[in-house]
Amino acid sequence: MFRHVVMFKWNDGVDSTQIEALAVALDRLPTVIPAIRTYAHGPDAGVNAGNFDYALVADFATVDDYLVYRDHPEHQAFLAEHIVGRVAARAALQYPVA
Amino acid sequence: MFRHVVMFKWNDGVDSTQIEALAVALDRLPTVIPAIRTYAHGPDAGVNAGNFDYALVADFATVDDYLVYRDHPEHQAFLAEHIVGRVAARAALQYPVA
Repeated sequence: MFRHVVMFKWNDGVDSTQIEALAVALDRLPTVIPAIRTYAHGPDAGVNAGNFDYALVADFATVDDYLVYRDHPEHQAFLAEHIVGRVAARAALQYPVA
Repeated sequence: MFRHVVMFKWNDGVDSTQIEALAVALDRLPTVIPAIRTYAHGPDAGVNAGNFDYALVADFATVDDYLVYRDHPEHQAFLAEHIVGRVAARAALQYPVA
């Protein structure tokens, strides 16, 4: 499997309504992008200080399936609507997993 | 399940020998900390520019199991030997997963 991990810190002013809409939009993506095998996202649980605000871990069968997802029009539309302009910091990485 | 996600960017000068030793040390932790359910880590695959250098995704049955791991002497010894002083940036988050 090939894993994509991403975390965001939101800009000041991003509110809970926007984050709930983002979560709904993320839940939709696996229904329209079959390349996604597993997709688990959510806000920070508040256990530790200094954390990022929102995380997504997504698994794909192959790196090519990840690239299908990355460049998919539905994913790009999600980014344009829910991510662009809202992010103070982003951390991302892809790696193979057993 | 309760998930811990963390990514690091290494300082200049952290070399492949150090990263290989870190990977071996990470592989050992699930053998000495039974609270760990799944533990998958590795360096960035190089697919995208601007990524972090190394990621770990760890799952636990409960938030309390995560805290056992976080504060476990074997984990703290790992951090002291392989992380402290080597990290230019760190991104972390914990969240519940289905």
